Amino acid sequence: MSRPIITLTTDFGPGSPYVAQMKGVILTLNPEAVLVDITHAIAPQDIRQGGLVWEQVAPRFPGGTIHIAVVDPGVGTARRLVCAELAGRCYLAPDNGLLSRLTRSQPASRIVALTNREYWLPQVSHTFHGRDILAPVAAHLSLGIPPRRLGEPVEHLTTLDWPEAVVETRRIAGVVLYVDSFGNVISNIPAACLPPGVPRDQLLVRCGGREARGVHMTYGELPAGALIALLDSQDRLELAIGSGHAAAALRVQFGDPVAVTW
Amino acid sequence: MSRPIITLTTDFGPGSPYVAQMKGVILTLNPEAVLVDITHAIAPQDIRQGGLVWEQVAPRFPGGTIHIAVVDPGVGTARRLVCAELAGRCYLAPDNGLLSRLTRSQPASRIVALTNREYWLPQVSHTFHGRDILAPVAAHLSLGIPPRRLGEPVEHLTTLDWPEAVVETRRIAGVVLYVDSFGNVISNIPAACLPPGVPRDQLLVRCGGREARGVHMTYGELPAGALIALLDSQDRLELAIGSGHAAAALRVQFGDPVAVTW
Amino acid sequence: MSRPIITLTTDFGPGSPYVAQMKGVILTLNPEAVLVDITHAIAPQDIRQGGLVWEQVAPRFPGGTIHIAVVDPGVGTARRLVCAELAGRCYLAPDNGLLSRLTRSQPASRIVALTNREYWLPQVSHTFHGRDILAPVAAHLSLGIPPRRLGEPVEHLTTLDWPEAVVETRRIAGVVLYVDSFGNVISNIPAACLPPGVPRDQLLVRCGGREARGVHMTYGELPAGALIALLDSQDRLELAIGSGHAAAALRVQFGDPVAVTW
Repeated sequence: MSRPIITLTTDFGPGSPYVAQMKGVILTLNPEAVLVDITHAIAPQDIRQGGLVWEQVAPRFPGGTIHIAVVDPGVGTARRLVCAELAGRCYLAPDNGLLSRLTRSQPASRIVALTNREYWLPQVSHTFHGRDILAPVAAHLSLGIPPRRLGEPVEHLTTLDWPEAVVETRRIAGVVLYVDSFGNVISNIPAACLPPGVPRDQLLVRCGGREARGVHMTYGELPAGALIALLDSQDRLELAIGSGHAAAALRVQFGDPVAVTW
Repeated sequence: MSRPIITLTTDFGPGSPYVAQMKGVILTLNPEAVLVDITHAIAPQDIRQGGLVWEQVAPRFPGGTIHIAVVDPGVGTARRLVCAELAGRCYLAPDNGLLSRLTRSQPASRIVALTNREYWLPQVSHTFHGRDILAPVAAHLSLGIPPRRLGEPVEHLTTLDWPEAVVETRRIAGVVLYVDSFGNVISNIPAACLPPGVPRDQLLVRCGGREARGVHMTYGELPAGALIALLDSQDRLELAIGSGHAAAALRVQFGDPVAVTW
Repeated sequence: MSRPIITLTTDFGPGSPYVAQMKGVILTLNPEAVLVDITHAIAPQDIRQGGLVWEQVAPRFPGGTIHIAVVDPGVGTARRLVCAELAGRCYLAPDNGLLSRLTRSQPASRIVALTNREYWLPQVSHTFHGRDILAPVAAHLSLGIPPRRLGEPVEHLTTLDWPEAVVETRRIAGVVLYVDSFGNVISNIPAACLPPGVPRDQLLVRCGGREARGVHMTYGELPAGALIALLDSQDRLELAIGSGHAAAALRVQFGDPVAVTW
């Protein structure tokens, strides 16, 4: 049988020793666990970004993977921690919307609140439930404890609203969903929304007061300094600047409008 | 038997290829070793920070773990490299104080200087003993070589002074111990020093010319911009600013005063 | 048999979730693969830096290691992807010069273009061949697929020119090769070029309008603020500033002149 995989997604910052504390807790309980960092560069307390990263990355891991996310502005308050089963993977996180991007396409098959202290560390701090609750719970799951033993069943997860692109007459109205590490601006406009009968080079994309003509297929067509619209690796409309940082040049962030016209 | 765990703590910076060179050396000697990064974001040559991170993180790993730290301003000079056994774990580092935080509560049970060249790489550079000595020594340890074969016994480790909080009449005088990746200011005042008979909301905490009233339990109580004192995940007094970087706002760093009065 | 090692070198930035997508793809195909990050801090699209890091780090890994590099400004254009076998290791990368530093000392024993779609993901995006082609190909290699099945044989790899140090009369003319994460300036002048009959303390090193006297052995000899020349851990001439960032102080980058005179 292959070794169980546990991934970590946090806003602790690259190189944070808090991440390593969680790894130590997991490996102490299950030295066979394989630990994979998804990212620790989520902007502090940015639940939306955490949710987007999980949507983008978590389903790429094999069935049976245990995913932990710690973006937890409410740590120590009454917010609950949950284990949600979804498409054969287990997701452990505060119930603050981190899961609400993944569950848009498919509801969780089971949700439990992590209330059974048997699977926590003996001492639980008020400020670091990632280490004291989520990490040991993940280790116990990886040892074969069934999720239903982790606590009481929960009916619904907390959800965040995610803006959807709106298809109008000869126009699609979307927004900026996030900015990647190259500064590329990813919108909420999926390729499937683009008008099928219109040649791609006749589409106009507007964002941050600038305009890009055509929706291209690759960065390879992009001269330095030029703004280009293309489809990203998730088949969403993206804006990039050749050898530049598009988000900085356009001065845009989450929620700012992106429009396609033809 | 479970696979041996080797951790790495350095000041090489996130993404440094020097870390990967060490991993290559270790995996060449022992492909079964499990490598875990504690952090590579120690400030350049900041031995104190390295020592604090080790104290905070290393004991969370299972017994038998081999910990390597490379914060080594004296590389190439006469400073020695050591292997110290402590609470069932092996610590490999330059003998420059990196271990002196861990050994405050418990002395090392055995210390050897890494003088036996049999366990080094055949060629040793003058500037990178982490790769040429510590990495291969860790790999040999993980293969079962007993620590006493690594070199000559050593009586005492180099120690750094760590300022201790002083409990006075109606006042505790402490200092800033470090700043975490969120900008939170962690002091050297342990929860155990706080006066047992005084309600927590009657304590005043002063740092960097500002004052916080009360010692709270969670960040969840913290409005944006407000300075708050709370107990961190190690049960030490910490100062945070809601949605802000406390160390920058207070302009404080290691050694600056923190006081509690009531 | 030991578990297969797959390393990753990219310009995605520390903490990029794109790296984790690649890991998910690999582990889905081969859960036994051991994944090691070499670095994700290559400057965006800097093929030369990627090539230098590979030269410095990749041969340190055990024979049989599968190395992936994604620094791929031409993704989606006609540039090909290759698998090159070299000294018992497999290198997977776009054929854009990433391999041309490694192959200076030793040619690849076999090169194939990755044209066999059987080993790709079923759906291939236009912008992320690291995830859709290189990652699954690496996983298949790690499962024992022989490299020749990955596609058609290729005769020659794309090469980049690498400036070589020139030994003149009483002078060596070199250039800056790269800047490490400490800001140290590494030149293309190997120790072997230094004049054997001249004492090291009589050599003068010039770079960025400043001069350092002598070629030293360790940083330990270096007072704060002073410019020093020494031999780095690869036996190349390096310039460092005590407690400072030499590249910033000298205002130099790749290609700027470094000269040794005596």
